[in-house]
Amino acid sequence: MGASSLDLAGMLEELGRVTDEPGRLTRTFLSPAMKRANRLVAGWMRTAGLKVRTDPVGNLVGRLAGTDPRAKTLLLGSHLDTVRDAGMLDGPLGVLLPIVALAELRSRGVQLPFAVEVIGFSEEEGVRFASAYLGSKGFCGQLKVGDLALRDSEGVTVQAAIDRWHGGRGAVDARHLPKAAHRKSDLLGYLEVHIEQGPVLEARKLAVGVVSAIAGQSRFKLTWTGRAGHAGTTPMELRRDAFAGAAEFAVGVEAIARRTPGLVATIGALEVTPGSANVIPGAVMHTLDVRHARDAARRSALMEMGRLATRIAGRRRLVRRWQRTQNHDAVACSPGLGAQLERSVRAVQGRSIPLVSGAGHDGVVVSALAPVAMLFVRCRAGLSHHPAEFASARDLQVALDVTLDFLQRLASAQA
Amino acid sequence: MGASSLDLAGMLEELGRVTDEPGRLTRTFLSPAMKRANRLVAGWMRTAGLKVRTDPVGNLVGRLAGTDPRAKTLLLGSHLDTVRDAGMLDGPLGVLLPIVALAELRSRGVQLPFAVEVIGFSEEEGVRFASAYLGSKGFCGQLKVGDLALRDSEGVTVQAAIDRWHGGRGAVDARHLPKAAHRKSDLLGYLEVHIEQGPVLEARKLAVGVVSAIAGQSRFKLTWTGRAGHAGTTPMELRRDAFAGAAEFAVGVEAIARRTPGLVATIGALEVTPGSANVIPGAVMHTLDVRHARDAARRSALMEMGRLATRIAGRRRLVRRWQRTQNHDAVACSPGLGAQLERSVRAVQGRSIPLVSGAGHDGVVVSALAPVAMLFVRCRAGLSHHPAEFASARDLQVALDVTLDFLQRLASAQA
Repeated sequence: MGASSLDLAGMLEELGRVTDEPGRLTRTFLSPAMKRANRLVAGWMRTAGLKVRTDPVGNLVGRLAGTDPRAKTLLLGSHLDTVRDAGMLDGPLGVLLPIVALAELRSRGVQLPFAVEVIGFSEEEGVRFASAYLGSKGFCGQLKVGDLALRDSEGVTVQAAIDRWHGGRGAVDARHLPKAAHRKSDLLGYLEVHIEQGPVLEARKLAVGVVSAIAGQSRFKLTWTGRAGHAGTTPMELRRDAFAGAAEFAVGVEAIARRTPGLVATIGALEVTPGSANVIPGAVMHTLDVRHARDAARRSALMEMGRLATRIAGRRRLVRRWQRTQNHDAVACSPGLGAQLERSVRAVQGRSIPLVSGAGHDGVVVSALAPVAMLFVRCRAGLSHHPAEFASARDLQVALDVTLDFLQRLASAQA
Repeated sequence: MGASSLDLAGMLEELGRVTDEPGRLTRTFLSPAMKRANRLVAGWMRTAGLKVRTDPVGNLVGRLAGTDPRAKTLLLGSHLDTVRDAGMLDGPLGVLLPIVALAELRSRGVQLPFAVEVIGFSEEEGVRFASAYLGSKGFCGQLKVGDLALRDSEGVTVQAAIDRWHGGRGAVDARHLPKAAHRKSDLLGYLEVHIEQGPVLEARKLAVGVVSAIAGQSRFKLTWTGRAGHAGTTPMELRRDAFAGAAEFAVGVEAIARRTPGLVATIGALEVTPGSANVIPGAVMHTLDVRHARDAARRSALMEMGRLATRIAGRRRLVRRWQRTQNHDAVACSPGLGAQLERSVRAVQGRSIPLVSGAGHDGVVVSALAPVAMLFVRCRAGLSHHPAEFASARDLQVALDVTLDFLQRLASAQA
């Protein structure tokens, strides 16, 4: 890692020990551990020469001025909060790696013409308030009055949590919602480095890849209602088996997903009622999660799944009910910034493949304010949200080299 | 119902109020309610001219001597215990209807040449000791030492329950297991009248039907293990989705059952792990219940299902595990006695259709001791094990008329 005084692997491990729960890593929005984490990361930011501030919703921002005072600002970052019993990479990698990159440039005596801000968003996982992106929404001026009224499991509102975080000083309220930290016209873009959380890079034997889009997502709760009956005494032709219908639907959904390139569809939770070995299922409830980088492809697949469900319900004399529980459209990454990032990836690892992010990221929110580029880093077995989350030192080095190359190419392009 | 002093519908209702649980009908092996039920039914038996005894395991037996002292004995009966929150028909119908039939014959001055015993078995549903047929096993001399050691949810053994039932007199122990109540050569046969617990008679618009066999049954617990993963980031082709495999298996099992006449196969309970909307199922556990009147057909279907599971697991890189939790072969009803019963059914309702009993009945055990015939009575929507269990007065009358015809034909045949 050259002459830099900061060691990425060591920093990730040290930050990974900053937790609200003894024995496992859990760090949530505006928690005591989050305060300690911000302090720790702020120290590294200063070592890298950044000027540190914390915004009203707890986002940690380290700024490095550019040599050209009229140049725009490049944002780099990710989130510092975690899921419960988390790994040390999901989020922190995208905050610490840019700090190390800037420290490295500094140690090489390289100065960038544009300003850089490294952001540690205070909330992305949605653990404490069951609502995601509170940090990036605050940074981008997207927090609403309704967000402040959300309550955690102990009844504390977002507003009250923010007040406590600031020692009761009331930084934010309905009349003082945070404004966007930057004007759109002042920003060069936003780069987020994140573990892939999926198996594609591992399968393709590549350390990193460039994200082309963050998939749109629709989530449903489906209910199939038939008629319970005695498993021994009801002939097959007289059954209205809710699970048989749901199983046929599941097989069909999988077939639709398989023949639609890039589509993923998942039935992750399912409950059978009454759920006895000797009773024909009278009702089944299950989830359905469908994602695609192109909204039209997702919508067309959903139409097909809807027709399939109608056909199955009609033929089997079942009643099926769809309830949409979540829906958001895809976010395309910036073609310009993405092409820049691809050049850096090709320069470092020989070739670059485009990846679709099936999971949401801070970039979803930031995309309203700035062009977004994302670099995915291979993680072992695609595992994330788990203490065994792992990326090799070699892959982290590739990601760091790509980021360094990206910053320098951007500097050349600006010069 | 002619001049008989006994009213079947009223008796069923009165017995249906004898319960261990206020507000719903639950009457289990050797419970206080069972003692009251035996007393009530014994009174009706005496009204019909029967001589009443109770055997060591609580079976209530009412005997009517025949005119020919050398003639064999015909058994008629069913069980007096119930499931929890039961209906009033499952079991009691097969005890009370023969009593009413015998009272009717008596009021008509008809005497049978052979002896008749009406049996109210004390246990068939397996509620209290999670083991079925304790009553008929006791009557038929099939109780084992191991049965006496079974414990109920309060830790009371079968042996202790029997002791208490007899006022601590210790009627049964390992050295004094109940012997069969009759020698095989002394019995004419066993007739059980029971609600169908299925929808076939209703679909065929018939009040009653004759059971040709009690199906053999195999029950399994299957486990499919794949790999959990992020629902958004794992492409379809890299998934090892345990639920997708289980769903494909369920569809295949249903297809096998549909193309095998008389086979029923049910997946009644299923659990998905981890069971989150956004996580690909890593493991699925489900039951499989397969029944057929012919053991060879059941075994051949199971072989086919086994091959199907192996194919699916191989193609999907899943590990599947079968665990057999229950297995018993089919019990054929007596062709001779069944033909006799069919003649009576044809005489009363015009035509007779053969039915397979998918559920087990006391006849399964009694078949070791005597030729068995079973008469099924239509029940609304095939519903049983439910307080809404219902058979119409008209259908009960048809069943009674068939039983009367059967007894008189048997008398003519004996004469």
